[in-house]
Amino acid sequence: MRLPAVAVVADIGGTKVLAAVVAADGTVLGRTTLPTHAEGGPQAVIDHTVQALRQALEQAGRGSGEMAAIGIACAGLVDIERGVVVASPNLPGWARVPLRERIEAALRVRTFLANDANAAALGEHRFGAGRGANHLIFVTVSTGIGGGLVLGGKLYTGAWGTAGEVGHMVLEPGGPRCACGQQGCLEALASGTAMAREASQRLKAGEPSQLLALAGGRPEGVTAELIGQAANAGDKLAGEVVERAATYLGIGLGNLVNLLNPEVIVVGGGVSRLGELLLAPARKAMQAHAFPHAVSGMKLVQASLGDMAGVMGMASYVMEAVQASR
Amino acid sequence: MRLPAVAVVADIGGTKVLAAVVAADGTVLGRTTLPTHAEGGPQAVIDHTVQALRQALEQAGRGSGEMAAIGIACAGLVDIERGVVVASPNLPGWARVPLRERIEAALRVRTFLANDANAAALGEHRFGAGRGANHLIFVTVSTGIGGGLVLGGKLYTGAWGTAGEVGHMVLEPGGPRCACGQQGCLEALASGTAMAREASQRLKAGEPSQLLALAGGRPEGVTAELIGQAANAGDKLAGEVVERAATYLGIGLGNLVNLLNPEVIVVGGGVSRLGELLLAPARKAMQAHAFPHAVSGMKLVQASLGDMAGVMGMASYVMEAVQASR
Repeated sequence: MRLPAVAVVADIGGTKVLAAVVAADGTVLGRTTLPTHAEGGPQAVIDHTVQALRQALEQAGRGSGEMAAIGIACAGLVDIERGVVVASPNLPGWARVPLRERIEAALRVRTFLANDANAAALGEHRFGAGRGANHLIFVTVSTGIGGGLVLGGKLYTGAWGTAGEVGHMVLEPGGPRCACGQQGCLEALASGTAMAREASQRLKAGEPSQLLALAGGRPEGVTAELIGQAANAGDKLAGEVVERAATYLGIGLGNLVNLLNPEVIVVGGGVSRLGELLLAPARKAMQAHAFPHAVSGMKLVQASLGDMAGVMGMASYVMEAVQASR
Repeated sequence: MRLPAVAVVADIGGTKVLAAVVAADGTVLGRTTLPTHAEGGPQAVIDHTVQALRQALEQAGRGSGEMAAIGIACAGLVDIERGVVVASPNLPGWARVPLRERIEAALRVRTFLANDANAAALGEHRFGAGRGANHLIFVTVSTGIGGGLVLGGKLYTGAWGTAGEVGHMVLEPGGPRCACGQQGCLEALASGTAMAREASQRLKAGEPSQLLALAGGRPEGVTAELIGQAANAGDKLAGEVVERAATYLGIGLGNLVNLLNPEVIVVGGGVSRLGELLLAPARKAMQAHAFPHAVSGMKLVQASLGDMAGVMGMASYVMEAVQASR
């Protein structure tokens, strides 16, 4: 008996490549994680990705003939039409890399490419915290801030596939410098990096906080995770840092509500593990800044798929693309 | 011979009601304008609207039996599902007015409702400066700032029909007070009202400018139109006021480009008559603030339908809705 075709997918991040084999109903048949070794440059990362895809397939007990298609979610600016990674801040040396072509050359299976946060948006919509919503916004808060839009039940990628960059909404012209080169982007105000920077500056200025001990006495050793830990333990400075970032996040989300009138906003990424410590003040600022009629009926919730959102979304993406092209 | 059915449409603004009869190909068969007399409250405005619709129909030489449907574009927050104007800053006393029901009761023809800027977005997309684009953003800059989104060739209205409020994107938390109650909205930084307020403040502070004479010696008499006139004549203060507003506009547009990756942004509304005086610095700021890959292939252009954008868009809207429901 021939088994039904599966999607073989990978999510390439700055530190790890997560690959999985997913059935049409969302069942994960196999998965594996390899380090990205981004410092090796594009070809090395592509080699690890191909290896991860093969391992996942093996783990699922499937042969390469059973792949319906391959889907690759990648961090950075992705041109989905051309299958090219235009640039990727966390993948050194990636400039106009024809990733789709390289994967197809290695595995000889039709391949689709998407931005990782876009894929995660689709994953949370199809299988996670945003199931059933017609219009959903996904925001991922970690080192940076990314996002994805599911509008009318479909992933919206814009004219050239770069839509959903919620992290680079300028909220404070002339504000803190962002990794993208601009100033005052949401990412520069509300990401884990922004939180760590602010806490470290305040520690260096001599403000008291248990954070200093948690960071081994080194202000520059502070991370968003330690800030969350200290804030949960009642530390004043840490609590203020989280609240300030969450308030900026909420203002940004309020802008998105006024612009797109979604039914649900799903917040994922490492910093979202702070849960209501982050979401409660963000919700308050969002409600204060958006039109009551647009904001009153909507929900702001934590993502539910964790690291799996990108591969799950990518699996939906390729299954639906294959279906549509039949 | 029975004539083909036509759309009978009206655009209710704060000062005038524009009604038109439009054929499926966009030919305007009749049009009329009446003052809104908004101070009379909702029922009086609705009566004027019904009167304007009847006059336009008469002018087109059509009977009421030839109406395919009626379309009403209205300033304010419009719940298109329920056919209700939730609130409208420029229409005093309008709170949860069941406009669709009232028009249907008066004229006994199926009626559709939309926000005026949303309708104008569709008009510019179907018949104006944005023809042929798959993804378009329309921004109207006048007393306030509104907008509309045409995504994938269709008007995007969001979960409850309130999408497209680009004017109430907060760009400067704690910035100047906006008519909506928030601070630092794009509207409070870049609308005609914001320009007039800034110019008037600078005149009161004693800065020299020909604007004072143009405004009859009264700083509070300055309007966006006079500012444009003075700026075109080389007046330094007026030029700076336009450039400052245009720069904020461009930052806001850059945010929209990063978020939605459109092919074209169309700028309409009274202030857009400044043309490149407004658009050139806005384009510069937009290009400086958006991702190069997203912004390089897109266009920022002036609207081409003027006051007719709303009724033209509404005509498309009802024709397409009637078509879809057949």
